Amino acid sequence: MLAVSDDRPEALLETFENPRPDRPYKIEFTFSEFTSLCPLTGQPDFATIIVRYVPGPRCVELRSLKMYFQGYRSMGIFFEGVINKILDDLVAACEPKEMTIVGRFNVRGGVGHELTASYSAK
Amino acid sequence: MLAVSDDRPEALLETFENPRPDRPYKIEFTFSEFTSLCPLTGQPDFATIIVRYVPGPRCVELRSLKMYFQGYRSMGIFFEGVINKILDDLVAACEPKEMTIVGRFNVRGGVGHELTASYSAK
Amino acid sequence: MLAVSDDRPEALLETFENPRPDRPYKIEFTFSEFTSLCPLTGQPDFATIIVRYVPGPRCVELRSLKMYFQGYRSMGIFFEGVINKILDDLVAACEPKEMTIVGRFNVRGGVGHELTASYSAK
Amino acid sequence: MLAVSDDRPEALLETFENPRPDRPYKIEFTFSEFTSLCPLTGQPDFATIIVRYVPGPRCVELRSLKMYFQGYRSMGIFFEGVINKILDDLVAACEPKEMTIVGRFNVRGGVGHELTASYSAK
Amino acid sequence: MLAVSDDRPEALLETFENPRPDRPYKIEFTFSEFTSLCPLTGQPDFATIIVRYVPGPRCVELRSLKMYFQGYRSMGIFFEGVINKILDDLVAACEPKEMTIVGRFNVRGGVGHELTASYSAK
Amino acid sequence: MLAVSDDRPEALLETFENPRPDRPYKIEFTFSEFTSLCPLTGQPDFATIIVRYVPGPRCVELRSLKMYFQGYRSMGIFFEGVINKILDDLVAACEPKEMTIVGRFNVRGGVGHELTASYSAK
Amino acid sequence: MLAVSDDRPEALLETFENPRPDRPYKIEFTFSEFTSLCPLTGQPDFATIIVRYVPGPRCVELRSLKMYFQGYRSMGIFFEGVINKILDDLVAACEPKEMTIVGRFNVRGGVGHELTASYSAK
Amino acid sequence: MLAVSDDRPEALLETFENPRPDRPYKIEFTFSEFTSLCPLTGQPDFATIIVRYVPGPRCVELRSLKMYFQGYRSMGIFFEGVINKILDDLVAACEPKEMTIVGRFNVRGGVGHELTASYSAK
Amino acid sequence: MLAVSDDRPEALLETFENPRPDRPYKIEFTFSEFTSLCPLTGQPDFATIIVRYVPGPRCVELRSLKMYFQGYRSMGIFFEGVINKILDDLVAACEPKEMTIVGRFNVRGGVGHELTASYSAK
Amino acid sequence: MLAVSDDRPEALLETFENPRPDRPYKIEFTFSEFTSLCPLTGQPDFATIIVRYVPGPRCVELRSLKMYFQGYRSMGIFFEGVINKILDDLVAACEPKEMTIVGRFNVRGGVGHELTASYSAK
Repeated sequence: MLAVSDDRPEALLETFENPRPDRPYKIEFTFSEFTSLCPLTGQPDFATIIVRYVPGPRCVELRSLKMYFQGYRSMGIFFEGVINKILDDLVAACEPKEMTIVGRFNVRGGVGHELTASYSAK
Repeated sequence: MLAVSDDRPEALLETFENPRPDRPYKIEFTFSEFTSLCPLTGQPDFATIIVRYVPGPRCVELRSLKMYFQGYRSMGIFFEGVINKILDDLVAACEPKEMTIVGRFNVRGGVGHELTASYSAK
Repeated sequence: MLAVSDDRPEALLETFENPRPDRPYKIEFTFSEFTSLCPLTGQPDFATIIVRYVPGPRCVELRSLKMYFQGYRSMGIFFEGVINKILDDLVAACEPKEMTIVGRFNVRGGVGHELTASYSAK
Repeated sequence: MLAVSDDRPEALLETFENPRPDRPYKIEFTFSEFTSLCPLTGQPDFATIIVRYVPGPRCVELRSLKMYFQGYRSMGIFFEGVINKILDDLVAACEPKEMTIVGRFNVRGGVGHELTASYSAK
Repeated sequence: MLAVSDDRPEALLETFENPRPDRPYKIEFTFSEFTSLCPLTGQPDFATIIVRYVPGPRCVELRSLKMYFQGYRSMGIFFEGVINKILDDLVAACEPKEMTIVGRFNVRGGVGHELTASYSAK
Repeated sequence: MLAVSDDRPEALLETFENPRPDRPYKIEFTFSEFTSLCPLTGQPDFATIIVRYVPGPRCVELRSLKMYFQGYRSMGIFFEGVINKILDDLVAACEPKEMTIVGRFNVRGGVGHELTASYSAK
Repeated sequence: MLAVSDDRPEALLETFENPRPDRPYKIEFTFSEFTSLCPLTGQPDFATIIVRYVPGPRCVELRSLKMYFQGYRSMGIFFEGVINKILDDLVAACEPKEMTIVGRFNVRGGVGHELTASYSAK
Repeated sequence: MLAVSDDRPEALLETFENPRPDRPYKIEFTFSEFTSLCPLTGQPDFATIIVRYVPGPRCVELRSLKMYFQGYRSMGIFFEGVINKILDDLVAACEPKEMTIVGRFNVRGGVGHELTASYSAK
Repeated sequence: MLAVSDDRPEALLETFENPRPDRPYKIEFTFSEFTSLCPLTGQPDFATIIVRYVPGPRCVELRSLKMYFQGYRSMGIFFEGVINKILDDLVAACEPKEMTIVGRFNVRGGVGHELTASYSAK
Repeated sequence: MLAVSDDRPEALLETFENPRPDRPYKIEFTFSEFTSLCPLTGQPDFATIIVRYVPGPRCVELRSLKMYFQGYRSMGIFFEGVINKILDDLVAACEPKEMTIVGRFNVRGGVGHELTASYSAK
């Protein structure tokens, strides 16, 4: 049934050529339906993932990004792993000038959790 | 990995004796992390599920209800099926005097979708 | 280019058999991206359309409903016409027990406009 | 240190004579700092407690009600027990014409929980 | 019927002389009824477009800007194209000192999308 | 200059034939830019006016209603007069089955003021 | 200095003749700057007072009502006394068909407090 | 009737000596009831006007500022004119160290419009 | 009755030794129940007062600050006087490294008023 | 009963190795269920505690942080003590590059209270 999950969701990412590489240009995606599993307990985690970047030679294709995020649905991974893997995968896919990934994880036991990791081409 | 899913999540439901069966009494649960799969496309659906009931002889145990909802994570089921199955399963488990299930499904293609089904013991 | 418009969008509506015709059951769709044209000025109108119904023998299929609403995009039609046509078309398509259509049209010249029309099978 | 807790907080309740017993009259208190302990895990629970009543011969004194609610701080008690004990204690203290207690418990594991119990002098 | 669309909406833009070219001066328009079509699927896209600029010799006339935005209604164009074309067209029309275009596109499949492009006369 | 004001704004009201007189049908207008003058002090008053009605033989035309409301701009009239005059004028213009006028006047000296008047054709 | 306070603020109330005694008619005032003193501690209390009524032969004049409310500023009075005195004073002043007074008192020690008293001419 | 309007509302402005000219000091007024007329169509415009300044030798008197704003009620003037005239008039009246005027004009045809003009004494 | 007012409320301020003078440290109080009197009209004014400071050798004691604010209740004082007096009194009492006082005064005649004054020890 | 309290809650803190010490990386926890006791009155205090840090060699384990916060439940401690102790304990536990602790304490007597303390490794 579960066609959307994948242990290597980065294989789903597609890109296209930046139409205006000469221009200052910011892109932000907000994906409010991220879900993965806790590797210790198997319990589901939920988060809103925000991707902000200044494109370099290539842009991330929107629909493939959604498929990529859905690929975490049955994966066991810690919060820190989620953020770092998304940043590594997207930097590898599109070589941005700058990129920031924010993960706002749902409250657990009264504790909200937000992680932010950044990359700069220089 | 995925210990939380089950084709028969109703087996996870537990109940306890209503401590005050003589008193008018309403209970409402709001579960904002419901997710299942579309049986046609395999795409994930997300919803907030609300359970409102007047208990009869038994009450639904909170932690088992969470496990029950998590059991839909890898199940392929339509929106109408979700609501009707939850109502059937909970009525069978605790014989309430009245029960209403509301499902507020996330917007898809600009369309929000809310379903409401009700049961009355008489 | 504009494949989504149609002078007879009701031809796009599809239905499926009500899975639980014996049970009290309410369905609500909220479509926040409705747009049509003013027949006098050609200016675009925007609205949120809400459909609330108790299904009879058949239910309205979600994706076909979205296509149906998109079919108004290039149609010249007054607000009153929009609401009455949607109610007529949906009643004809699925024979509901009860149905209400609400249209919340965007503010024009400081005036907000909401129209509500209802049908009852009996 | 912890002077505010008590196994019998109902002993802290004070009342005063209803100044206008002849007049229709509603009183509502909202206490957003309720906390008790789960009897199974010892983990703290948090809730907003709402008291709505039509006074009979006597009214509940505000400051003593706050002390009463603080008396649950170190008590191990289930959600259902909280609501029913508050209703029992307040009805005994002031003999209201009608009284409703609502408890909105903080989300646990993605599940919000609201309980409502009512009394009528008939 | 559809008089508002145009393959070259930039022809609709009108400007007027900046009444106070000596003074620091910021202008911001927010157009919440932007809609165009996806060039691949023909499906409608919706966005709020924000134009922020410091005028140079000329200002953009408000009503012509609305007509210009309405000119995208039947155009097939990607999100990146929308933002870059609006920036190019408005810079050409009024030679601003600085200009920023923000496009907040409606959520699709749980993904919100915001694009920001900037120009500086230097 | 001030073409929009008039001592008899009711002369500006236009109506059109109710397209579906057989159907239950509610119409609501919200006009958030109402302003008139205090007859004692000459100070401006501001209000949001809501018109809710079930049409009889005729409906109120939207643009003429806006002109009608603008006709109060230089009129000296008390709050009670505003509400009663609007109800009288609109009932006379369109013979509704039912009509309610609500006026939410801006806070003055810390006091908000809302007036509601109703008509029923019986 | 303090000209606004008065031990008998009801002497400040003024009324005028109901301009449409034949018509169903509701009036609501919201006064968000009510303040009085606790008779035990001398500490200031703050509240929003809402007056809802259906006028009989006379209406309450807005500015005199504000003066009346300001007359509580230096008065020592309990919450229950505030609500009942306002209802008594206004009923005596204007003989309404129905009147309800709501007092929403600011949170004290985590406890919000709302009182509602009603009168009906029968 | 209309005593509040004036072709030269700046004559209404009054000032008083800055009580603490030695101290860093910011003052902000928000006037949410600004209205003027479009010079082309005669239609009313509405705006919230914000005045932020660091006073120099003199401060603007609040009540006279309100009268000044009310003086635009029957004036035909474009948005850019409103903002620049207010800035010119207030700078002339009180010689501030810095001043910024923001005008947030009500949405027209789906377009919101905000203008910001600034002055610095040096 | 009115024990809380005082012509010299600064006498009520108490301080305690800063427990960590070596550490960067910010403190913010928000007092939403400030009220004083207009020296011209005797009418009450209401404000939210915000105190932000970096403590020097001493901190302001919370309860004494509340008493200090209550001491303005029967004082006739202009808005500018309120802000400057609070800043002077608190700087004298606790010798902060930096301090800012913000006063957000309730809307009067449609005009909101915010004043901000700052002190820096250098 | 009360297993969650401890006079030395810092003993409950656990850490794990920072998985990406080479990368700019921010972590923020929001704990909305903090409660302790006033050392003078024994009355409970409530706060939201925010922890923001850039990890050094080690990260704070989420569940142990929750247990640590719960350890203040029966402790008598002033607001300033809470913030400084949390900062000292967490710096000692995980040697962050930077860390900020914010405490937003519930309103008491109309006064909200927010404290912010910061640490920098260099």
